[in-house]
Amino acid sequence: MRTQNELIELINISLEQVNLDKKPAKLYDPIRYVLSVGGKRIRPVLCLMACELYDNQIEKAIQPALALEIFHNFTLLHDDIMDKAEKRRNMDCVHIKWDENVAILSGDAMQILSYQILDQLPEKHLKVCLALFTKTAIEVCEGQQLDMDFETQEEVTIGEYMKMIRLKTAVLLAASLKMGAIIGGATPKESELLYQFGIETGFAFQLKDDLLDVYGDPATFGKKIGGDILCNKKTFLLIQALNNADKATLNNLNYWLKKTDFIREEKIEAITKIYNQIGVKEICLNEMKKHQKLAFESLNKISVSDTCKAPLTDLANELMDRKK
Amino acid sequence: MRTQNELIELINISLEQVNLDKKPAKLYDPIRYVLSVGGKRIRPVLCLMACELYDNQIEKAIQPALALEIFHNFTLLHDDIMDKAEKRRNMDCVHIKWDENVAILSGDAMQILSYQILDQLPEKHLKVCLALFTKTAIEVCEGQQLDMDFETQEEVTIGEYMKMIRLKTAVLLAASLKMGAIIGGATPKESELLYQFGIETGFAFQLKDDLLDVYGDPATFGKKIGGDILCNKKTFLLIQALNNADKATLNNLNYWLKKTDFIREEKIEAITKIYNQIGVKEICLNEMKKHQKLAFESLNKISVSDTCKAPLTDLANELMDRKK
Repeated sequence: MRTQNELIELINISLEQVNLDKKPAKLYDPIRYVLSVGGKRIRPVLCLMACELYDNQIEKAIQPALALEIFHNFTLLHDDIMDKAEKRRNMDCVHIKWDENVAILSGDAMQILSYQILDQLPEKHLKVCLALFTKTAIEVCEGQQLDMDFETQEEVTIGEYMKMIRLKTAVLLAASLKMGAIIGGATPKESELLYQFGIETGFAFQLKDDLLDVYGDPATFGKKIGGDILCNKKTFLLIQALNNADKATLNNLNYWLKKTDFIREEKIEAITKIYNQIGVKEICLNEMKKHQKLAFESLNKISVSDTCKAPLTDLANELMDRKK
Repeated sequence: MRTQNELIELINISLEQVNLDKKPAKLYDPIRYVLSVGGKRIRPVLCLMACELYDNQIEKAIQPALALEIFHNFTLLHDDIMDKAEKRRNMDCVHIKWDENVAILSGDAMQILSYQILDQLPEKHLKVCLALFTKTAIEVCEGQQLDMDFETQEEVTIGEYMKMIRLKTAVLLAASLKMGAIIGGATPKESELLYQFGIETGFAFQLKDDLLDVYGDPATFGKKIGGDILCNKKTFLLIQALNNADKATLNNLNYWLKKTDFIREEKIEAITKIYNQIGVKEICLNEMKKHQKLAFESLNKISVSDTCKAPLTDLANELMDRKK
């Protein structure tokens, strides 16, 4: 079995072989910039790992792996415009380094590129993989729209929130696994189990993200603690706090949510204190563990040896134990 | 042979059958809005006409025809954000009617939708059509970037301009024809001839566009005359004027190009007068006719009867004789 680092290296080498040294510069330079920043390459790694469960020749899955990574980076690029984010992985976002038009158009080109690379699959896999890819891609857009809708939506239920993170985050992880499995030759039942493993891991992954924003260690988190709190982002923690607060605490919480003139540290401290009083950290941890358990139940049903599953198990555990 | 109107009706009916009555509303409502506005449906019409040259069952080509139309409308949607346009076909642009984020994301979803529909092609055509589709799509992005580059580029040559309109406009018309031909069962040689017919028609089409902006009849043009002149757009006419003006005329032209405070009608009148002095209308008409001739030379080489070619010939002539 290849290690995670070996897979990341294979992905990075393969990404470098995609010819992006082209003109016009303002179209292709941002694409190279975005793809060279690196990151954990989680989606292509999952794709290759799923393939390797069934077939040692993981090179067969390298094209969809690259397509998934490029598609994911396209969504980050456009999301950053929509969210008016300035930094991504400590680097200027494309719409900051260049401008918004460049970010829109190079994002569009990245999406096209992902389909162009996917088209290199052999015919027997192309139709089913393209169908899975496009279904997932549309769902990711739906998730992003729901996330934006939540900004102005008075009340968001936990059910709505879970649906949003399923679409925005979980389905792409799930599809990465399923595509790798299909190419590796898994049965429909097995590739569906991997899909479910991806969905549940995706839920747990996003809940961990929400937790890290408030309870991460500033020394290891990589960005500032409390970003979600400052912009009133309707995370799992905030929604649970709104649901479970007694009247006095709710008034206090709403006071801070409505306050437009505040000292950043004070707001973060006040809302974290409310979260601690209500115990939303534990509620979120429990929910995370529930999905992690469901993820491993799916993985356990797969008919390959535990040794072969080890890279996936390790990666899923790492994502939950991560510090950033 | 189906008439153009019969084809447009078939396209519109088929577009209505695409299920877009979905949530979240802010993602799908703009897509329905954009696709229901109508327009001439030139690309899908070309696709169906090219198919019909070789196969009466044009329904085989309806999926790529729809994919081409949806892709084209996606590019208009994103171009309108980048160009800060407010109206398209007398309707508010999506980023005006909703907002920019909605326009970015629903555009992204439209692009995905076009690949999803293309995936319904039978396996024997999918790989080659997807390759043609993605190659063309990237070229359209390159064309849009070149067009934006020209805004700040001091000097644009006619060669650069022709390359830009080839990418931005001509290749999608050409690919529409080629895809229809492939599905209809044309030989590679014949489908390539149709591609060339599309490229040359595309050149002529864009040159006609440039002409209409200055020399169109306000009564039939549908938008205001002189839009390109007011924003110093580097059209074929302006580039030729800059190339062919004597020193005094060039000074006068540059005076108007640099003037930031002007009465709209005065600037349009002054620059049109310069165009008339230099005779750029005739230069543009000649270039247009040259490409029209090349287009028909390609079409003539195709081994189907003139009767069968009549719808394509008529459409190409219509595009050149159009008033808007």
